[in-house]
Amino acid sequence: MNNAILLISCPDRRGITAAVTNFVYQNNGNIEHADQHIDAQTNTFFMRIEWALDGFRIARDAIAGKFSPIAKKFTMTWPLYFSDRLPRAAIFVSGHTHVLYDLLLRYKEKQFNCEIPLIISNRSDARHIADNFGIEYYEFAKTSKNKNSVEKKEIALLAQKGIDTIVLARYMQILSKNFVNRFPDRIINIHHSFLPAFAGANPYAQAYNRGVKIIGATSHYATPKLDAGPIIEQDTCRISHRDSIDDLKRKSMDLEKVVLARALRWHLERKILVYNNKTVVFD
Amino acid sequence: MNNAILLISCPDRRGITAAVTNFVYQNNGNIEHADQHIDAQTNTFFMRIEWALDGFRIARDAIAGKFSPIAKKFTMTWPLYFSDRLPRAAIFVSGHTHVLYDLLLRYKEKQFNCEIPLIISNRSDARHIADNFGIEYYEFAKTSKNKNSVEKKEIALLAQKGIDTIVLARYMQILSKNFVNRFPDRIINIHHSFLPAFAGANPYAQAYNRGVKIIGATSHYATPKLDAGPIIEQDTCRISHRDSIDDLKRKSMDLEKVVLARALRWHLERKILVYNNKTVVFD
Amino acid sequence: MNNAILLISCPDRRGITAAVTNFVYQNNGNIEHADQHIDAQTNTFFMRIEWALDGFRIARDAIAGKFSPIAKKFTMTWPLYFSDRLPRAAIFVSGHTHVLYDLLLRYKEKQFNCEIPLIISNRSDARHIADNFGIEYYEFAKTSKNKNSVEKKEIALLAQKGIDTIVLARYMQILSKNFVNRFPDRIINIHHSFLPAFAGANPYAQAYNRGVKIIGATSHYATPKLDAGPIIEQDTCRISHRDSIDDLKRKSMDLEKVVLARALRWHLERKILVYNNKTVVFD
Amino acid sequence: MNNAILLISCPDRRGITAAVTNFVYQNNGNIEHADQHIDAQTNTFFMRIEWALDGFRIARDAIAGKFSPIAKKFTMTWPLYFSDRLPRAAIFVSGHTHVLYDLLLRYKEKQFNCEIPLIISNRSDARHIADNFGIEYYEFAKTSKNKNSVEKKEIALLAQKGIDTIVLARYMQILSKNFVNRFPDRIINIHHSFLPAFAGANPYAQAYNRGVKIIGATSHYATPKLDAGPIIEQDTCRISHRDSIDDLKRKSMDLEKVVLARALRWHLERKILVYNNKTVVFD
Repeated sequence: MNNAILLISCPDRRGITAAVTNFVYQNNGNIEHADQHIDAQTNTFFMRIEWALDGFRIARDAIAGKFSPIAKKFTMTWPLYFSDRLPRAAIFVSGHTHVLYDLLLRYKEKQFNCEIPLIISNRSDARHIADNFGIEYYEFAKTSKNKNSVEKKEIALLAQKGIDTIVLARYMQILSKNFVNRFPDRIINIHHSFLPAFAGANPYAQAYNRGVKIIGATSHYATPKLDAGPIIEQDTCRISHRDSIDDLKRKSMDLEKVVLARALRWHLERKILVYNNKTVVFD
Repeated sequence: MNNAILLISCPDRRGITAAVTNFVYQNNGNIEHADQHIDAQTNTFFMRIEWALDGFRIARDAIAGKFSPIAKKFTMTWPLYFSDRLPRAAIFVSGHTHVLYDLLLRYKEKQFNCEIPLIISNRSDARHIADNFGIEYYEFAKTSKNKNSVEKKEIALLAQKGIDTIVLARYMQILSKNFVNRFPDRIINIHHSFLPAFAGANPYAQAYNRGVKIIGATSHYATPKLDAGPIIEQDTCRISHRDSIDDLKRKSMDLEKVVLARALRWHLERKILVYNNKTVVFD
Repeated sequence: MNNAILLISCPDRRGITAAVTNFVYQNNGNIEHADQHIDAQTNTFFMRIEWALDGFRIARDAIAGKFSPIAKKFTMTWPLYFSDRLPRAAIFVSGHTHVLYDLLLRYKEKQFNCEIPLIISNRSDARHIADNFGIEYYEFAKTSKNKNSVEKKEIALLAQKGIDTIVLARYMQILSKNFVNRFPDRIINIHHSFLPAFAGANPYAQAYNRGVKIIGATSHYATPKLDAGPIIEQDTCRISHRDSIDDLKRKSMDLEKVVLARALRWHLERKILVYNNKTVVFD
Repeated sequence: MNNAILLISCPDRRGITAAVTNFVYQNNGNIEHADQHIDAQTNTFFMRIEWALDGFRIARDAIAGKFSPIAKKFTMTWPLYFSDRLPRAAIFVSGHTHVLYDLLLRYKEKQFNCEIPLIISNRSDARHIADNFGIEYYEFAKTSKNKNSVEKKEIALLAQKGIDTIVLARYMQILSKNFVNRFPDRIINIHHSFLPAFAGANPYAQAYNRGVKIIGATSHYATPKLDAGPIIEQDTCRISHRDSIDDLKRKSMDLEKVVLARALRWHLERKILVYNNKTVVFD
């Protein structure tokens, strides 16, 4: 199965859907999925369209060129993807390995449409897991002093390995603005609270101390501002006065795994559009 | 705001979306919502498209005629609705009035895009509520003996009042096959269990006796087979060994209200397509 | 059914449960409910015990005196309630009446074990609802200038009517510190967000702008610090990019109703203990 | 930490709680948890009491003898456990290994208070996982013909290894009545549907075909009647018309893992009492 996917954003006006679907149809494409959304507040049109390339009359490499006039006419932002060109993701991890383990098991079960060639960590805790799954493991000890130089090495490594997607699987180091800006809307983080509540350090203790009756986890794209990027997915679970901080942690860990897995899956399937620090998710 | 809405079902093949969106665009319509879904198992295409009639070049009464050739080409089922022609709904109720009250309050808050000219009951319990909201109340005492003749009167009344949608708000009488078949996919029922578990009588006691840890409510279109029609919406809530049957009832009542309200709202907004005893809900 | 209820808090040590249950048993009381909890962090013991007075050997008015030595021995805080002495609640409301309506319907359905003799508002919107349910309605127009003098009148009225519990049913005025401190842990508010996220004004718009994927509602005891009191109950529901602020409002309204109803019910059944700005809820 | 735990069931009458808590107190025990519940329908009293043995005046082996007169007086069923005598669990698995993997990861994270000395399977699929976690793996090929003789071998092995708890982690073989009856309330199964809906084979397809909007998973004690034993825990998640059977399976797998983990944890912590084919869970 080899499909083309367009993720379109542009000012809304008459004729966009007709123009896009005609382009596919007149070139003998078969639309498999088409979703659209109009944000009334900003008058913005969003579309995700996926069609089979089998029988499509335009060669893969010529599609962008042929679609370009339509894109110009409507002032579109329009990344084009092919389902057989797999994203290449690196996982960053620190001392907590439950999310990493969960991601790798799902990866093995073919839940993620990507390649995961490497894992990067500031610690050695997860090395045996990487070994177990046959994935390269790179350890970069980071301190506040060597952060810049280490990040340079990480960026070089990511470039060398052709990485386009970064998954922060409970990575406990804050990435620099420079690092984050190199991967716009391509670094997916899991934060162990229901954002915007309990951003920053130790959200389990923050939740415990505030006495909330429900806790949550949030997956979002990383931006230079900590825990403030576009939210992709959240989920919650009920707690009570009987739950200690350790219980909160245990319950949260289950949320973290499923929330990050859903977010990553949507990202890899090209189902997410970002605008105004928010996401449209065509699930 | 005056929109046209098409709910399309047909065998899937190339060009359907392009044909439909072209029809709208070339006649100067502005698409406000477009959703589609392909059921891979049965190769069936589903679409809901809604466009503004303001500026549309085809007169309202001519739209069906002009669209007809496209519909024929693709062998479509294609009900056409206009958002300013409000559905006319009758609510059927018996002794439990919590759902009725909830519906009427939402109706007053403009949550339902319809007219509710009458309430029908086999009892007098809800008459004061109908009076309070200024809605006509008809009481038809039913027994197993007079069921046929009473249903005839009800059908005549519904026809006279121009009713196209029937809401069974905890109506405790079983409608005859003849009655149900006159309103295909237009009778919306709320059943106080998580179907298909606990169909039939007294689902609260059934759930209590089985010792489930979660209860639910289900809204579905009525079909001649009891509690077996296409499911529109469901929701659940957690219970424990501490909950008596009365607690289950109280918790369930909250579910019944929101589940029926969501289902009715989607129905009135023409967001539901039925096939194979299942629903596609374009919410 | 006439029961006594003790809500006990004290430092944890050996023998508390035995002392309390012996007191009940040796005086021929039948325990109907007993729950306890130890907060390990602060070494605090919490207990709720409810027993039938039918056959109990100590006269109702003598119970406190007889229990007092036990309470002293363990340095207990120990409010004593009788299930047949109904709390008397006043509802405060402003322009949004959905929560008020919901409360009154549940009150009529006997879901709340209390008397509701009056409704207080800064507006006239809800007067017809109060009339409809046969409850006195008092309107106190408030401005920043007359706030103190108006609150004095309200406090006098509440005293005159014997009110011990205040329910803020989307009351949009901020009560003064003086007012709040007169009703410690006896003013129950509903805030239309998942606190601590989106405290303060217009949480619907705050949630919409932040792009969260789940919204919530929170019921808490009012304290002088706005939206920061002990949380009693919360619930959440899923939203998506398709939901406008109006949709958020509509969905939130359903949460607000059930969350406040649960919190009020627990409060009236004497199931809540407050400590450290948190709640123990023995549901 | 070494605690004693009593799980008491008996007809309700005056004085049970006082008798039990006095027993602990007068022998210098410190109660850490005490929960009780009265089932009003059957007038049955349930209690879970846990106290520290540190400083307790009765020797561990003498506790049962000393408590026996109280138990007799109230006609109690009263299993006594010690928190440092770990249950020994065997996991049964077939071809689907996601639940097994999840259990073993939680086991390694110390979420389960037990020993897991062996895994039994009718297939070889999970052998490498068992090896990876350093747990013995026994493969017993089963057919309808050799079932009895194979079960005999399994029972002998379980006896030899001192197993008292069996976890069916998506084990796809039906155990005989004889086998099940040897482990009353000690075989924990996970069924991949919201029971009682979709018992038996292929619940994913059953749910898909019925068109439900929510799916679930159920953990229960196995009884000779298939999928009909006392329910310990359930959870649900929302699906839509967009979800294929494969999507249902993927979503269900996440439910299966958390639901079984919760049920097993409660079982191992001696928090579950069974009566009338239902469970009281003191979580």
